[in-house]
Amino acid sequence: MAEMDQPLLVIGAGLCGSLLALRLAQRGHRVLLHERRPDPRIGPVVGGRSINLALSNRGLKALGMVGLEGAIRPECIPMTGRMVHPLGGQAVLAPYSGRSGEYINSVSRGGLNALLLEAAERHPNITLRFESDCLEVDLGQAKAVFQNAGGGKETVEAGAIFGTDGAGSAVRRSMLGQTNALLFNYSQQFLSHGYKELHIPPAEDGGFRIEQHALHIWPRGTYMVIALPNMDGSFTVTVFLPFEGDNSFTELATPEQVLAFFQKQFPDLVPHMPDLAGDFLKNPTGSLGTVKCYPWQAYGKTLLLGDAAHAIVPFYGQGMNASFEDVSELDGLLDEHGSDWPTIFKTFQQRRKPDTDAIADLAVDNFYEMRDHVANPQFMRKRRLETLLEQHFPTYFSKYSLVTFREDVPYAQAMRQGRDQDAFLMDYCAQDDQTDWDLADVYGRLKTVVNS
Amino acid sequence: MAEMDQPLLVIGAGLCGSLLALRLAQRGHRVLLHERRPDPRIGPVVGGRSINLALSNRGLKALGMVGLEGAIRPECIPMTGRMVHPLGGQAVLAPYSGRSGEYINSVSRGGLNALLLEAAERHPNITLRFESDCLEVDLGQAKAVFQNAGGGKETVEAGAIFGTDGAGSAVRRSMLGQTNALLFNYSQQFLSHGYKELHIPPAEDGGFRIEQHALHIWPRGTYMVIALPNMDGSFTVTVFLPFEGDNSFTELATPEQVLAFFQKQFPDLVPHMPDLAGDFLKNPTGSLGTVKCYPWQAYGKTLLLGDAAHAIVPFYGQGMNASFEDVSELDGLLDEHGSDWPTIFKTFQQRRKPDTDAIADLAVDNFYEMRDHVANPQFMRKRRLETLLEQHFPTYFSKYSLVTFREDVPYAQAMRQGRDQDAFLMDYCAQDDQTDWDLADVYGRLKTVVNS
Repeated sequence: MAEMDQPLLVIGAGLCGSLLALRLAQRGHRVLLHERRPDPRIGPVVGGRSINLALSNRGLKALGMVGLEGAIRPECIPMTGRMVHPLGGQAVLAPYSGRSGEYINSVSRGGLNALLLEAAERHPNITLRFESDCLEVDLGQAKAVFQNAGGGKETVEAGAIFGTDGAGSAVRRSMLGQTNALLFNYSQQFLSHGYKELHIPPAEDGGFRIEQHALHIWPRGTYMVIALPNMDGSFTVTVFLPFEGDNSFTELATPEQVLAFFQKQFPDLVPHMPDLAGDFLKNPTGSLGTVKCYPWQAYGKTLLLGDAAHAIVPFYGQGMNASFEDVSELDGLLDEHGSDWPTIFKTFQQRRKPDTDAIADLAVDNFYEMRDHVANPQFMRKRRLETLLEQHFPTYFSKYSLVTFREDVPYAQAMRQGRDQDAFLMDYCAQDDQTDWDLADVYGRLKTVVNS
Repeated sequence: MAEMDQPLLVIGAGLCGSLLALRLAQRGHRVLLHERRPDPRIGPVVGGRSINLALSNRGLKALGMVGLEGAIRPECIPMTGRMVHPLGGQAVLAPYSGRSGEYINSVSRGGLNALLLEAAERHPNITLRFESDCLEVDLGQAKAVFQNAGGGKETVEAGAIFGTDGAGSAVRRSMLGQTNALLFNYSQQFLSHGYKELHIPPAEDGGFRIEQHALHIWPRGTYMVIALPNMDGSFTVTVFLPFEGDNSFTELATPEQVLAFFQKQFPDLVPHMPDLAGDFLKNPTGSLGTVKCYPWQAYGKTLLLGDAAHAIVPFYGQGMNASFEDVSELDGLLDEHGSDWPTIFKTFQQRRKPDTDAIADLAVDNFYEMRDHVANPQFMRKRRLETLLEQHFPTYFSKYSLVTFREDVPYAQAMRQGRDQDAFLMDYCAQDDQTDWDLADVYGRLKTVVNS
């Protein structure tokens, strides 16, 4: 049984890979964890990734599984709703849920990754290696070739390989190279919008310049700005604009153009951003893509998880949560199937794929909702009605709540049920500026819609 | 104007590339035409491509453009309809059109490619090079690196690069490598069925063992066999089966299994195929995939055409025709824009993309139609009614006729109009075994459907 003695190889020590390695080690497997980048806990942070993330129930459940929920909680800033900043109007907080205790958490990507890496490094079953760049994977033999920082090459053999190396996955590239043998279905689709991160520093007294416990949105139709709080009193601001055309990244090329655009469209934001034009022109512009592929496994030896299997756009705040949930779902199969990797990998991809497809589609939908609909009166009435329903009926969950707070409801079911509810409620709120809703009647009719 | 003096580089000298090179040369451009494979006119044919193809109006128009329609006509075997072979019943010819003169042509891929290569080779503006394998393309600089049969490398600079290197395009791979810079949308999707080519030899007197002027189909629900005639009296037979499961390529693994399957499902075919089991077990199994991508052009310097831009499944017999039509469409833009490649490339991709998306989708639809619906009584009534309509009304064209015989109707329009007609006619033929159709009434109502 030489194969049973071989360690497992996890390629990619980002959020998903370090969590997975830790869980596999906790189950008694020896794990080799290889990461292309240098140790993120040392030296400057490499750009191009978002600085903070929204951690919600599915992600917290997975952190609980490895015993780290208590360690991350103090690093979280609860955000109880969307603070919507209309142009020329008063900002309004739209709660995420009608129930208290249902909120999302702003958390530092770097801090969370460091927490997971430290736990992984401390675990005696894990060998962690940085600056080990996967060049290719022999999928059928479960061997991977790595190049280290000095240019030296090394071939690693494993009992099984887990590709958690993100949206630009090298493991997935090896699968693409065997397109015909694997019948490897693959798609990558980009939005015509990109994003850029900016910064609101803390107030002079160290406090927050705008409401701390909210995800701020400045919706402007075809573009938008959002801001998430950080522990030091600052906010990470993300501006989403088209790449080309009016008010695009291409058009905003000088400090004057940037300032004029922000002063016209986001006048309440400008005073909080002393380095606005400089940051805008200096920081990289990122693209927003969805990657879907199938199969995720090859030859019962190699499996993709996380962004490598399903990169999604950030508009539902579920990218990390979905990747963490991959690890919880895989973990459930280890109870049933031990280390029968071929069975585990096939079962995992069949069960999990509909859910990650669903959250990918919901995330694209939410781009349009956030930049546009949140400022629409009909949509705002519908959100108020949903909040009331959630306050009065403990068993009612909006689409947002199903996705975000119901870790027991698979994404695909949350999508179906949520869309049915949305269609009914948007129709219900179409007419006029009602406020005297008969909540019991609405709730009764909603149940019929969802169960039909 | 050094750049104007640079030759154009066409990568891939298959059907599309050799036609394109010829047309560019006829317009006065110097053209370098590089092909990865050895000269197909010398030595054995490399396997894995279909042996014969269905050439129809769009393809013939493009061959007419370069003056080769007359040369190919004698190599064509007209196929006037589908000869449908039901299990245990009499074969029936379903004409492709109610008009005479509307038929498709069985033609040898190798013969057509040889004709185009000879014309290209004879043209003084073209330099043709075989065994020149494109390793990568510098898209922004219009430079490509090739490796020859001896392993030597060469960098070729060009005024513009045309990637006509097929479904596995190396030029497209270079675009995939610049995913973020180009926002390169890409998808490859496979059917769960594959295909294998088999052979019906000529009769002992040199004639055809089954009807010559037809495309033969043995539809069997979840799988099928087709056969196209060759000039030497033989037929190329293609069997389409699932990769896995009952009656799949995986299950049919011994001569006994193959023969038992064919004797049960295709008893009229077996006597014509003396080498059936041997061919089945020896010949490779091909996959059936659709590739879509966008943009097709990069930096105004490089353009994908043909299968490199839009590989489709073979069930509409339009793969080659669509690739040839790419060349006709591009040619039209050269009249307008000379050699302003950035404008030509952008205009081409914008205009052409909806049409190649349409034929890709129609081709997948036709898989289900061919293997299943052609044997369905309602579908057969509808086809008879359409044939009558085409006989009585010269301006009526079925979806199949719009796609196949109307080179003046873009694929996207053919798809929309054809689907509307189909929906109406299938409904109309739903009830019972009518034959006393009021054709003028049906025709009048069809016009309303299509124009609404």
